[in-house]
Amino acid sequence: MSKLPAFLFYFLLTISISLSSHPLDPLTPAEFTAVQTAVRAHYSSSHTSIAFHYIGLKDPPKSAVLSHLHHPSAVPPPRRAFIIARVNHSTTHELTVDLTGNNKISDQVYTGPGYPIFTTKEQLAASALAVGHPPFLESVRKRGLKLGEIVCQSYGIGWFGEQGKGSRIVKVMCNYLDGTVNLYMRPVEGITVTVDLDRMEIIGYRDRAIVPVPKADGTDFRGSKQRPPFGPSVNDIDVVQPNGPSFQIDGHRIRWANWDFHLGFDMRAGPIISLASIFDVQKQKFRRVLYRGFVSELFVPYMDLTEEWYYRTYFDAGEYGYGSYASSLLPGADCPANAVFMEAYFPDEDGNPQQLPNAFCIFERYAGDIMWRHTETATPEVVTEVRRDVSLVVRMVSTVGNYDYINDWEFKQSGSIKVTVGLTGVLEVRGSEYTHKDQIHGESYGPVLAENTIGSNHDHFLTYHLDLDVDGEQNSFSKSKLETVRVLNSTTSPRKSYWRAVVETAKTESDAKINLAGSEQIDFTFVNPNKKTDVGNSVGYRLVPGSVVSPLLSDDDYVQIRGAFTKYNVWVTPYNESEKWAGGVYVDQSRGDDTLAKWSLGDREIENRDIVLWYTLGIHHVPCQEDFPVMPTLSSGFELRPNNFFERNPVLKAFVSL
Amino acid sequence: MSKLPAFLFYFLLTISISLSSHPLDPLTPAEFTAVQTAVRAHYSSSHTSIAFHYIGLKDPPKSAVLSHLHHPSAVPPPRRAFIIARVNHSTTHELTVDLTGNNKISDQVYTGPGYPIFTTKEQLAASALAVGHPPFLESVRKRGLKLGEIVCQSYGIGWFGEQGKGSRIVKVMCNYLDGTVNLYMRPVEGITVTVDLDRMEIIGYRDRAIVPVPKADGTDFRGSKQRPPFGPSVNDIDVVQPNGPSFQIDGHRIRWANWDFHLGFDMRAGPIISLASIFDVQKQKFRRVLYRGFVSELFVPYMDLTEEWYYRTYFDAGEYGYGSYASSLLPGADCPANAVFMEAYFPDEDGNPQQLPNAFCIFERYAGDIMWRHTETATPEVVTEVRRDVSLVVRMVSTVGNYDYINDWEFKQSGSIKVTVGLTGVLEVRGSEYTHKDQIHGESYGPVLAENTIGSNHDHFLTYHLDLDVDGEQNSFSKSKLETVRVLNSTTSPRKSYWRAVVETAKTESDAKINLAGSEQIDFTFVNPNKKTDVGNSVGYRLVPGSVVSPLLSDDDYVQIRGAFTKYNVWVTPYNESEKWAGGVYVDQSRGDDTLAKWSLGDREIENRDIVLWYTLGIHHVPCQEDFPVMPTLSSGFELRPNNFFERNPVLKAFVSL
Repeated sequence: MSKLPAFLFYFLLTISISLSSHPLDPLTPAEFTAVQTAVRAHYSSSHTSIAFHYIGLKDPPKSAVLSHLHHPSAVPPPRRAFIIARVNHSTTHELTVDLTGNNKISDQVYTGPGYPIFTTKEQLAASALAVGHPPFLESVRKRGLKLGEIVCQSYGIGWFGEQGKGSRIVKVMCNYLDGTVNLYMRPVEGITVTVDLDRMEIIGYRDRAIVPVPKADGTDFRGSKQRPPFGPSVNDIDVVQPNGPSFQIDGHRIRWANWDFHLGFDMRAGPIISLASIFDVQKQKFRRVLYRGFVSELFVPYMDLTEEWYYRTYFDAGEYGYGSYASSLLPGADCPANAVFMEAYFPDEDGNPQQLPNAFCIFERYAGDIMWRHTETATPEVVTEVRRDVSLVVRMVSTVGNYDYINDWEFKQSGSIKVTVGLTGVLEVRGSEYTHKDQIHGESYGPVLAENTIGSNHDHFLTYHLDLDVDGEQNSFSKSKLETVRVLNSTTSPRKSYWRAVVETAKTESDAKINLAGSEQIDFTFVNPNKKTDVGNSVGYRLVPGSVVSPLLSDDDYVQIRGAFTKYNVWVTPYNESEKWAGGVYVDQSRGDDTLAKWSLGDREIENRDIVLWYTLGIHHVPCQEDFPVMPTLSSGFELRPNNFFERNPVLKAFVSL
Repeated sequence: MSKLPAFLFYFLLTISISLSSHPLDPLTPAEFTAVQTAVRAHYSSSHTSIAFHYIGLKDPPKSAVLSHLHHPSAVPPPRRAFIIARVNHSTTHELTVDLTGNNKISDQVYTGPGYPIFTTKEQLAASALAVGHPPFLESVRKRGLKLGEIVCQSYGIGWFGEQGKGSRIVKVMCNYLDGTVNLYMRPVEGITVTVDLDRMEIIGYRDRAIVPVPKADGTDFRGSKQRPPFGPSVNDIDVVQPNGPSFQIDGHRIRWANWDFHLGFDMRAGPIISLASIFDVQKQKFRRVLYRGFVSELFVPYMDLTEEWYYRTYFDAGEYGYGSYASSLLPGADCPANAVFMEAYFPDEDGNPQQLPNAFCIFERYAGDIMWRHTETATPEVVTEVRRDVSLVVRMVSTVGNYDYINDWEFKQSGSIKVTVGLTGVLEVRGSEYTHKDQIHGESYGPVLAENTIGSNHDHFLTYHLDLDVDGEQNSFSKSKLETVRVLNSTTSPRKSYWRAVVETAKTESDAKINLAGSEQIDFTFVNPNKKTDVGNSVGYRLVPGSVVSPLLSDDDYVQIRGAFTKYNVWVTPYNESEKWAGGVYVDQSRGDDTLAKWSLGDREIENRDIVLWYTLGIHHVPCQEDFPVMPTLSSGFELRPNNFFERNPVLKAFVSL
């Protein structure tokens, strides 16, 4: 791998000492500490136990942010933190702390269904309990395993129709090292340890069956552990910018080429792109495209009904924290040599800020692609004009347990915002008696990938919250359906048919619930009905979908009731400050009563309003042997592409200078 | 733009002097000349006029090629040329010339429907006729245009149900320069000049209506013609390989990393990838994936019924030649600095070989992407392993008139073959009275893009011929349908549903006609039923579709009868040497009787046979103002991805050395 060029350190330095602030900046370490202090002071008794499950910026009102944008010298929007805490292991509190000096606090008890994000501390404690549990030691002994090589982790239990509010419970499942670091390839099956997190005690233990633990051989993915024969190698290759990157980072604001946006961070969502605007050369001004975009939820249900597996229906943002599980990016490997890195902060259970170095990388991307070209041979002299496609990428990798999600936000000079997620990491496999496919009788819930190893079938759904503001807040969602027109009179034309675009504007939410599969003859565009181009087209941004899938679980399945926001690939809702999390605020043991699917039952009006696009991409994953022991990246994504937003090609003049 | 580094010239030199030959090599200049001489000698009379419409390698029998591959020292397969010629402007001849010394010739007259690819010479002659035609001069005068700034081009007329075999006819349409090189933005509407190509005379002239010619302002896309204000610029960026590229080019055979394939060229198809095999590190041998892949046809029907537009239903391969319209690639712009270029040869109408420099570029691609990664925090020490994604790209750009198609074949070390086509270039627009959308009454056939400029709606369909040979010739096409399973007994599981994969093998062609839109719950895999992995899975390659569309023209529309091969995105046929061109061999004025849709009516068996995948990707293109005056690239593609082809992740050991 390449060495990091010296000039990059300069940039790292620039970023860390920058003092510019913005109303949407994530909380600083000092602010986390202020929150911690204020909340402790609020519960004056020193005997009060406080566990911080979430601390993040409380969104300032959109109107205040926009007003601040237009009048930067005026009073900035209020800066507040939003906190979800468990107090005395018994009640969930929603608090806000005013960070502008007075540390004023508000406190409300939440009594509805569901629980907040797990803390790392309680998860580790639950696992430690299991490993020290005498019946567990007996189970380990019976299996002939070494206790010191066992690694346990706790998982949310979901909801399966239970009445009444249950306790905060996790199930602890264990894996085995002993000769590998790839513990997910060595599940210790058959044991369920149930832990009450608030009481922090084991409330259930079951050793149902002994299943062979898959062997360590061939599972380790570390380079240092690989043995010959090796395949052919390739020569060094890298991206270079002799004059350095072309972007400026000012605090969390990033300016590059014709783009200007804010990059935030949240322990739950990960990266948050805000106020993305593009400079219109012809109009000589910045025009807004996206007020805010982020991953609202990830839903990863497994299709394995084995007793130790049926409840594995992960909500990675709402149960675990897509941001707090970000991995530190490895320079020169996770990102090219010309990348610049940014750190992030999130709180631990005690409210202490944790630094995550290299949480983001930002780099200019040149993949050898062509932004536009034409060769004209019909002219007196042959004309060839080609422009290279150079874009800007913001990357964060979130490793939620076994899977690594590579999140890219790519800004193109042509005006497109391309969002990509790459799935890699290791599978969650189930240990099994089977060593060959032919042994399978009945349901295996997935293919045999290696001896004693079943790759359980599962889905990945990522739901993006995309508050588009196409050249202003008031937008409409336009469906341009391509319809076949029959030519009835043969004297009109020798043709018998053609197609035309029939445009329809969604009036209410129910007009905008769309399964993209089967909708390939429709263009979906966010338009600003109040802004027209010179020749009269509504300015807009078009959604160019990537691979999409629909859920296959039954609507009445409790799992799907909780994940009902994946029912459609596209939903459009009126902007509502409180509607951020597609699966609800309290996702652990949620019951589907605070999801996008529920909110939009109101069938609210969405025409010429401030509206939000919810986009769900997905993959049905039937594992294959190539995914073992570590999975080659499988990508999916979508593009938001200008459509009559500009008067003409906005990059006609790119890479031209006098 | 970057300068071409000196070391690249070395590679160019290596390629041009290489003497290695391969049975699938395209014809050499000497072979074209031998064909020309042999065919001329065959028609001994010097008064015979011979027009070469196609000259290319006659495919050696597949069995002979494969046998040669296994026994390179044995007699190579016969080397022959296939020729389509028009003799004495009256008959179409199919000839073969034996190129192995004796120049033996066979000659057969073709009398069926349709005509061969147009030659450049006859197209230029037809245009010259039009420009010299007195009524045309009058039409130009009436419009107040300058004759010297008019550029005319000829277009195939299609077929609209006419009975009896018509003459070889084209229609000549004209555009205007006068202050721009972007002639397609300045159509001269209302005039139709009909030319008989064999007689080379005008057989029809009509000046129907005078329509304003859109102005030149703002249409020129040359960098030198752009005026301030300019947008922000970005710093230089390039891909470097300090030790040079890692691939070897030996004649037309390319070896890189774990891949080995042959890159051919054909005036009709453009690039042809053959015998693509991947080295299996575990098995220590090369295993074949693809016997041959190429673009079989492009179908671009316009949805404009205006008298001068209704017939514009281009078949870019069969009518014009996707290969002979390739553009010379611009180093440092069309391809990155680390690219190596290859030339190609195709014949002119007289049979003389024409050299096209820089027809292909080949380069290693590193876009900053991640091949695989994982961070493991549950281990005693945090483990992070990341592998960068470096792939090999073969690129050709074909500029068929106004559109530029960027054709990429990308070979990934992980075993994937990714095929991408990028659409750029300029639109074909229609001149119009309209200067604003609000003036439109009735059908406009597309949106207003600029004053007097309608962007006519149209489709792009690209049909790929993919003769997969997954680890051998005998393959099956497997459909793995994901089906919801209801859990009827609540004592079995708290879950009410899950999904499982139900695998079905296509028996005959009708089982494999698939519209991918709406088939997102099905995985399509080419498997070799005779080869199993150690744990018993059939080795296979999975089709990962990209954006797909279905045709919207009526089945009984003559246009769609000719383009019926676009009806499904996927067809699977038994390998048949004669079934190469999805739209038929003779596409000009074709009647749909020699298309993929017709062949497969036989419903032949396709299980455990040598089978071929036909994949059609497409775009319904409603133009937008950003496409004016030159269009930002819009890409589509698909991936062939190993699926239980390898025993495990084939790049587990990539970038590792002792």
